[in-house]
Amino acid sequence: MASDLKRSSGRRPDQPREIRLTRDYTRHAEGSVLVEFGDTKVLCNASVEAGVPRWLRGKSQGWVTAEYGMLPRATHTRGGREAARGKQGGRTLEIQRLIGRSLRASVNLKKLGEFTITVDCDVIQADGGTRTASITGGCVALIDAIRYLQREKKIKGDPFEQLVSSVSVGIVKGVPVVDLDYPEDSGADTDMNVVMAQKGGLIEVQGTAEAGTFSRAELNAMLDLAEKAGADLFAHQQEALGIRR
Amino acid sequence: MASDLKRSSGRRPDQPREIRLTRDYTRHAEGSVLVEFGDTKVLCNASVEAGVPRWLRGKSQGWVTAEYGMLPRATHTRGGREAARGKQGGRTLEIQRLIGRSLRASVNLKKLGEFTITVDCDVIQADGGTRTASITGGCVALIDAIRYLQREKKIKGDPFEQLVSSVSVGIVKGVPVVDLDYPEDSGADTDMNVVMAQKGGLIEVQGTAEAGTFSRAELNAMLDLAEKAGADLFAHQQEALGIRR
Amino acid sequence: MASDLKRSSGRRPDQPREIRLTRDYTRHAEGSVLVEFGDTKVLCNASVEAGVPRWLRGKSQGWVTAEYGMLPRATHTRGGREAARGKQGGRTLEIQRLIGRSLRASVNLKKLGEFTITVDCDVIQADGGTRTASITGGCVALIDAIRYLQREKKIKGDPFEQLVSSVSVGIVKGVPVVDLDYPEDSGADTDMNVVMAQKGGLIEVQGTAEAGTFSRAELNAMLDLAEKAGADLFAHQQEALGIRR
Amino acid sequence: MASDLKRSSGRRPDQPREIRLTRDYTRHAEGSVLVEFGDTKVLCNASVEAGVPRWLRGKSQGWVTAEYGMLPRATHTRGGREAARGKQGGRTLEIQRLIGRSLRASVNLKKLGEFTITVDCDVIQADGGTRTASITGGCVALIDAIRYLQREKKIKGDPFEQLVSSVSVGIVKGVPVVDLDYPEDSGADTDMNVVMAQKGGLIEVQGTAEAGTFSRAELNAMLDLAEKAGADLFAHQQEALGIRR
Amino acid sequence: MASDLKRSSGRRPDQPREIRLTRDYTRHAEGSVLVEFGDTKVLCNASVEAGVPRWLRGKSQGWVTAEYGMLPRATHTRGGREAARGKQGGRTLEIQRLIGRSLRASVNLKKLGEFTITVDCDVIQADGGTRTASITGGCVALIDAIRYLQREKKIKGDPFEQLVSSVSVGIVKGVPVVDLDYPEDSGADTDMNVVMAQKGGLIEVQGTAEAGTFSRAELNAMLDLAEKAGADLFAHQQEALGIRR
Amino acid sequence: MASDLKRSSGRRPDQPREIRLTRDYTRHAEGSVLVEFGDTKVLCNASVEAGVPRWLRGKSQGWVTAEYGMLPRATHTRGGREAARGKQGGRTLEIQRLIGRSLRASVNLKKLGEFTITVDCDVIQADGGTRTASITGGCVALIDAIRYLQREKKIKGDPFEQLVSSVSVGIVKGVPVVDLDYPEDSGADTDMNVVMAQKGGLIEVQGTAEAGTFSRAELNAMLDLAEKAGADLFAHQQEALGIRR
Repeated sequence: MASDLKRSSGRRPDQPREIRLTRDYTRHAEGSVLVEFGDTKVLCNASVEAGVPRWLRGKSQGWVTAEYGMLPRATHTRGGREAARGKQGGRTLEIQRLIGRSLRASVNLKKLGEFTITVDCDVIQADGGTRTASITGGCVALIDAIRYLQREKKIKGDPFEQLVSSVSVGIVKGVPVVDLDYPEDSGADTDMNVVMAQKGGLIEVQGTAEAGTFSRAELNAMLDLAEKAGADLFAHQQEALGIRR
Repeated sequence: MASDLKRSSGRRPDQPREIRLTRDYTRHAEGSVLVEFGDTKVLCNASVEAGVPRWLRGKSQGWVTAEYGMLPRATHTRGGREAARGKQGGRTLEIQRLIGRSLRASVNLKKLGEFTITVDCDVIQADGGTRTASITGGCVALIDAIRYLQREKKIKGDPFEQLVSSVSVGIVKGVPVVDLDYPEDSGADTDMNVVMAQKGGLIEVQGTAEAGTFSRAELNAMLDLAEKAGADLFAHQQEALGIRR
Repeated sequence: MASDLKRSSGRRPDQPREIRLTRDYTRHAEGSVLVEFGDTKVLCNASVEAGVPRWLRGKSQGWVTAEYGMLPRATHTRGGREAARGKQGGRTLEIQRLIGRSLRASVNLKKLGEFTITVDCDVIQADGGTRTASITGGCVALIDAIRYLQREKKIKGDPFEQLVSSVSVGIVKGVPVVDLDYPEDSGADTDMNVVMAQKGGLIEVQGTAEAGTFSRAELNAMLDLAEKAGADLFAHQQEALGIRR
Repeated sequence: MASDLKRSSGRRPDQPREIRLTRDYTRHAEGSVLVEFGDTKVLCNASVEAGVPRWLRGKSQGWVTAEYGMLPRATHTRGGREAARGKQGGRTLEIQRLIGRSLRASVNLKKLGEFTITVDCDVIQADGGTRTASITGGCVALIDAIRYLQREKKIKGDPFEQLVSSVSVGIVKGVPVVDLDYPEDSGADTDMNVVMAQKGGLIEVQGTAEAGTFSRAELNAMLDLAEKAGADLFAHQQEALGIRR
Repeated sequence: MASDLKRSSGRRPDQPREIRLTRDYTRHAEGSVLVEFGDTKVLCNASVEAGVPRWLRGKSQGWVTAEYGMLPRATHTRGGREAARGKQGGRTLEIQRLIGRSLRASVNLKKLGEFTITVDCDVIQADGGTRTASITGGCVALIDAIRYLQREKKIKGDPFEQLVSSVSVGIVKGVPVVDLDYPEDSGADTDMNVVMAQKGGLIEVQGTAEAGTFSRAELNAMLDLAEKAGADLFAHQQEALGIRR
Repeated sequence: MASDLKRSSGRRPDQPREIRLTRDYTRHAEGSVLVEFGDTKVLCNASVEAGVPRWLRGKSQGWVTAEYGMLPRATHTRGGREAARGKQGGRTLEIQRLIGRSLRASVNLKKLGEFTITVDCDVIQADGGTRTASITGGCVALIDAIRYLQREKKIKGDPFEQLVSSVSVGIVKGVPVVDLDYPEDSGADTDMNVVMAQKGGLIEVQGTAEAGTFSRAELNAMLDLAEKAGADLFAHQQEALGIRR
């Protein structure tokens, strides 16, 4: 692999974009975080509601779920409004299922009690990596919602288990790179989203060859980059939350 | 009418909230304005597309339309996502029809040529007056989109006719007030949205008695307040656009 | 303003069309009224059902709501059947929300008890003013439904508060006119629907400039016409109901 | 079979209800007929549109189709509005397919040219037999639409082939009866709808045992009743159309 | 009628296709039958669920219903997937209503108790007669589901009343024939589906003239063919079920 | 890791279930394959249609896409029919997007010309691994459809690039195993679907920790198992297609 790839952004292959996590971005949600991975901006609002979905009733546990949407002009060309088309597309459903699964790894649902936390991830501006930004920012909003439940004495224990973060990696012009922006993502040979746990280990790995195939060696090189970026993401989350490291 | 109403916000009856218009809020849309009426924040993105709807083809004119949405947690309690429910509600459709009609008063469609400008008004945070903020901010985004078409030499003349702005007025505890916030709106006896033209005159008036009725005198008192606030709104729009007054 | 406008129908500017209210038009509904404003014919059926919508349960009050529809060939050219298209359009939803709000001004919901009255307004033939005819006729059907509840001793007090009627007004070729028919409505500069209460006062005012703007003076001239026609509509409603004036 | 059945309406087993066919019931449709089978009232509007569905284009023929709907309170208890529920039910779709097939037997589609005639059958009041009334009245509306095309010289030949009429028959308390009203229909052992051609012969037969089964002898007894009533229906159609017999 | 019709398949006019009923075709359903009428193959799965639809609750009876679907490429050309189009078509709804009604004639719903049996009929390969095959095979699956309820001692009595079978008949080139395959069905003058009860008698008759009309004599000739084939179908069902005749 | 896991099926950790590929399973589709991974049975029908989706027109290339469905009683308990619910669920959309992406790796779309091949994967019986079976069987059906196009001389070159196959792997009770059946899948700690190319390399990797996390070592152990099973799957595909190895 060529170590001298020039990324259009001037970044090194192992260099993520600038990450920003702004808490209390809006005032109604129990947790509200604007997450920015460079020019990708996603508003993550965590809402607490008493009760759980029907299929969980009476099981003495809570639920964490996510919904994802993109403002029609978050992208280069205007996409139709899903509400106007009358349904969420396959891509949207796939992403919100991924976000929900990932965030549940952050929480002990038994300790959450019969509350549902819904994390709405709405993309204000898109430049690649909206799902990984959503997971990373959504986790911070989720924790703020849990802290609200504790502060209001609605729950006793602490359902928070660990931070979860996510980053994309890929093979661009033969070189493994981290945190692809939209032009890189469009031209990548392979694209992979990795969800990581703060205590170590992988929660989800989704790699797709867009052209040709990828090798085991490339897979491992991409995972190396993701793990390195993950440490950085956990640090950003901790700093935003004021958690001592 | 009692002249000494204490508004919960401390505002005088004829005092609108602080207005802010931030242009170029996102980077993809041809016009992108964040409009704030106090705590009400709406992102207005104007998108230019070549071509017109089927029923206008071959008529040598353009089209301006609007869509409206609210992020699920823009409000005190989470509202269901319209895309997930599979349809836009009656309130949403009613509002986006109003915004579209109002913005068309700003433009000479013949001079626009066969282009469609869609103004997406997405409510990031709601505190009353989202439709009037949408019209006021959407008009600025629309003008930026028209300026884009001129700058790119896609059109020759200037389809911009005049500014359009909007404000809500109402009767709260018997007193006419302007620019109601959510608590005032919820408790108002009468609620009215007024859309005004920069050159003078009314574009739309929608008044509703929420409890009882309202008199002709009250209607006129409300319109007096709206007109006064309108002058202020036009000044804000001009300043944001850098138009000399 | 020119006082000598020739209306295509030969009517004076302040002359509504012939109004007819036929009670007991169909035999199943608790209230069934065919309302005719000239060639506009709307069947208003009021149906009584025990119970209230979920969000009103346990509040010891009733509910009044409306639905609106147009037979596919009520108009000059056939419109698609909304049931076949799979959704009600924005115009339909907007109109039925207006009718429902207006009719609720007629009723003391506390005295109605836990009953829901749904007023279905189905346009058999359209020639302008279908929403104002629906409100005017729907109010009579609503009262018949209330009388049914009293006659059957399902409620004790009298929830009927006052009559509600509605008429359209507009500016056609610069002249304020009342009760526009379809050709006038299509060519009007300004179109306004006014909902009035029998005890005096306005319930709803919705004015829209179709071309240009309208002035405060024009607004007041239109409201003068509406109030004059309102007196006539209340008289028709009272006569149809056999209420001594 | 007991020859002495007392029908609740006092009719003889072979006696249909009073039939009325009122042409030009509304003024916009090319054919507009109110058909009444006793208390069952259906408005049949035939609309002419240039062009044919996509799958018939270029085949030098026309198309005849039907849509069916029921006003929400046409029945004893209010049924939900199909437009509000977002889809037409199975019963509705089944009935409108039947009406369309039946009416096409009336017309030479080749001679109709590239026009589509849509017959909307909307039930104003229901008391059993809405589909048979729709076919019988719809056929008259269809012919009026054809006569319009001829009068306007949009077509040259005469696509009208023959009248089509329909009546229900059934076995009630063991006795074959014709033209069942709603109470009879609800309690019938067997219910059958028969569509007949003016030149003789059957177009459609749909018989259903609601309880138990029916025998070949019963089937034939019912068809005898239908044929007898059919002669009467054709006479009513001819009289309504002013066709000399 | 010409007795010497050559059927494309070489069959005699009164000769059905080869019938096969394979029980236990899949392993999860309480009753699972693959029914083949020649090249028409339908998988009929009967599923038992505790409880009944809302409108039957508390009436101490069970319910039997059916759903029908066709795999997209069961036919000569691919048909769109109904799940992807977002609704079941009119033909589908009509067929599944027919199957449900027919199968209920097989069962004493009172003796079934508060269980619902849903018979899913999914067409794997279509060559005409899919609805008649569905009824014939669905009845066997239904009985297996009833036997499951008895074997598991969930019900006490025997709700099985009688077998129900179905076959299509038609007039092809003037000759009455039984069990039409797709080419015959497409070219038939008249097409009729007949549902028969094991104890004798008809459950449903649906005859449609595709071109012209059919006479009473033709109707009776078709019914003769159906009854003859019915005896054969009952024998196949009994043999499949191991019921001594 | 414990090397002595007892799988409920008695299989060794690295032992896939019995694979069967039956070509020409139905007669209408250009490619029709029943694929069985043990008790999981999926019918894969590949349909050829002239033309490409709108967004590919004029680009001189073809398209390969997939749709996925599950018969309502393919599973232990009956699942609602997606066509009846009016939409495909998120899981369905996610799976059919995966199948489509995977199969496109098999084909040179430029050489396919302006044809669309749709591979319908309908699950007749489910026991875990329906998506991996769909990809493996769908690839064989796709190749049969390509061979049809060549045989009929509709295309000149050979768009077939290479076989694609897929298998699931997971961590069950701490042990990496291949080709999980439903009970294993339900209880797995980690579940991963791997799509492989015949020429070597990975096309898609989707691994999810259902409980806790998985390590890089576990990921690599699972991939080892998948690669071993992949060789076996390619052999089965070649044998079914009669391709000499």
